Amino acid sequence: MRISILLEKFKRGLNAVDRIVSSKNTLPILNNILIKTEDNQVVLSATDLEVGVNYYLGGKVESEGAITIPGKVLSNFINSLNEEKINLLSNNGVLSAKTEKSEASINGMAPDDFPIIPKVEGKTLAEIDGMALKQAISQVAFSVSYDESRPVLTGVYFKSDGKSLKLVATDSYRLAEKEVVGVSVSEKIDFIVPIKTINELHRIITSSEKIKIIASENQVMFLLSDMDIVSRIIEGEYPDYEQIIPKNFKTKAVIKTAELANIVKTASFFAKENANNIKMNFAGNEITVEAVSSQLGNFKSKIPCTLSGEDNEISFNAKYLLDALGGLNSNEMTLEMVGKLNPGVIKPSGGNLGITYIIMPLRN
Amino acid sequence: MRISILLEKFKRGLNAVDRIVSSKNTLPILNNILIKTEDNQVVLSATDLEVGVNYYLGGKVESEGAITIPGKVLSNFINSLNEEKINLLSNNGVLSAKTEKSEASINGMAPDDFPIIPKVEGKTLAEIDGMALKQAISQVAFSVSYDESRPVLTGVYFKSDGKSLKLVATDSYRLAEKEVVGVSVSEKIDFIVPIKTINELHRIITSSEKIKIIASENQVMFLLSDMDIVSRIIEGEYPDYEQIIPKNFKTKAVIKTAELANIVKTASFFAKENANNIKMNFAGNEITVEAVSSQLGNFKSKIPCTLSGEDNEISFNAKYLLDALGGLNSNEMTLEMVGKLNPGVIKPSGGNLGITYIIMPLRN
Repeated sequence: MRISILLEKFKRGLNAVDRIVSSKNTLPILNNILIKTEDNQVVLSATDLEVGVNYYLGGKVESEGAITIPGKVLSNFINSLNEEKINLLSNNGVLSAKTEKSEASINGMAPDDFPIIPKVEGKTLAEIDGMALKQAISQVAFSVSYDESRPVLTGVYFKSDGKSLKLVATDSYRLAEKEVVGVSVSEKIDFIVPIKTINELHRIITSSEKIKIIASENQVMFLLSDMDIVSRIIEGEYPDYEQIIPKNFKTKAVIKTAELANIVKTASFFAKENANNIKMNFAGNEITVEAVSSQLGNFKSKIPCTLSGEDNEISFNAKYLLDALGGLNSNEMTLEMVGKLNPGVIKPSGGNLGITYIIMPLRN
Repeated sequence: MRISILLEKFKRGLNAVDRIVSSKNTLPILNNILIKTEDNQVVLSATDLEVGVNYYLGGKVESEGAITIPGKVLSNFINSLNEEKINLLSNNGVLSAKTEKSEASINGMAPDDFPIIPKVEGKTLAEIDGMALKQAISQVAFSVSYDESRPVLTGVYFKSDGKSLKLVATDSYRLAEKEVVGVSVSEKIDFIVPIKTINELHRIITSSEKIKIIASENQVMFLLSDMDIVSRIIEGEYPDYEQIIPKNFKTKAVIKTAELANIVKTASFFAKENANNIKMNFAGNEITVEAVSSQLGNFKSKIPCTLSGEDNEISFNAKYLLDALGGLNSNEMTLEMVGKLNPGVIKPSGGNLGITYIIMPLRN
């Protein structure tokens, strides 16, 4: 292989793929990045067998070939250069890299052992604006479960009946549902994407370019203009989450999001040793937030709200509440509830921003 | 104790003292911050027995008293508030804190067990501009030793014969000497300040205010306008470092600092498994930097320089060289040397900026 690439483009490509490369991999080849030529352009690939990324670099191909290079070494080396172009030559498992002023030889491995990142063939299920997908991910991803005993909850559920696209995540203590509008959906969508893929996707998307989603039975591919991300789909059926969303309420509070976030944050310092348990009391157009710790002390604060329906009270895990408030993306919010044994529902106030958070109550 | 303080001022004070409070302390009282009234103002204090900080808050004292509160709890709580004022009341080891909207009770401990931070009495040895001291610290502190087997090297040496003030640090592999000018020195100075105190001092100084240095036999005090830092002095005699600074050279290179830093950084990735060993060759107004790694590969790069004297070569630990280049604070630098078995001397080029780095050579 003999190729010539622009360093700026090479850096962007490496930064897109090298997070997949973990030094924790027990299979040494997975610590490597594959550089290969394909259809007269240069492609960088990395995979951890669960998720794989291909980045299409362009570049000038003088002779075809491929080599794999330890990802961290390659990234550190390339990112420290600040010239315009680099020439790469592979020979007997060694990559020779030359710029105008420097030359390096980096020991690699033959490309034969590098796992093939499968192409997902099939119809495009949906086409979605990059920034809309990135925002949807950041609004739901924190709610996935990290408990491997229920694998279906360790990913984000993509669901569509052919109209809008919904992204859902839950760890069974709280749930986030985002409905993304303005998506062109051509088929029914129903699959669960592992959180690692979701996090990579969130990191990699940096523009409003259209992203195509293509899925087979076991795999999903997100197709960007200069890269694709291929991931396994989590097997199994996502729980019928819609049934737990309460439909009728006894109490509704309209609250300034930042004001609530602020006192919940303070209260959470006092709630740490008590499973983050904070108590909220709704009465007389005020919310009182309270946290008690036998060791540290206790805290109480009030903020104004617009209350309709009955006076009420409920206890939440402060962390789940703060996560939801951070995801709302709205200055004003509503908190709706039935009673202290039913889940609370949090939404942006006014205007349908498509985001709903459900938080299970704690016993006090 | 019953006091009233401005929250902004309280936050500044806490942020100044709370780094001393380590949760690693085995003596529980050292995890606490002392709040006390003194001469009708409020004082915050923290100590780890090696270094202590007193911050003078001002504030309104309604009744005298004192209490100690776990530092992390107090900082987290206070920093999350964004009102104007806070009222504090201590009662039976509990601190009641009230703002307009919130109230908290925080469990503390009686102040009697809190170690006394000694006042250092004596003449002011020197008065130095805050930013000049902060810069001097950042230029030398990275060269101290973390090897407890030679305690005198684990601190920064302050030395003056009554004129300028010198700060010196060495780990016996490299040495940094900074001469601070424009200091008013009234006495001979000769003591070693522990690196922990030095780091705190660097963090705490944020302005050009005059800082007074007062020392007794075992202790030194840095006196700022609203706080003082009191530290033990490291016992023992600092090595006669001046004798190792070479006086005559065979080779002198004038180099653009950023250009050298850039290629040394790249070379260092290849030098890691070889004790950071990089080789520098000086010939024909060029420096060639080389690093070889049997496992990763190797790297070579050239940069221009203005060379006088003999062609030469020397090997350095890339990390020590990068530390020195980062500390120079100068676009252009000189590297002077005798031969590959003698230390190299690095200084800013042109204009005396008072900073000198000595780096011992590595065998190649």
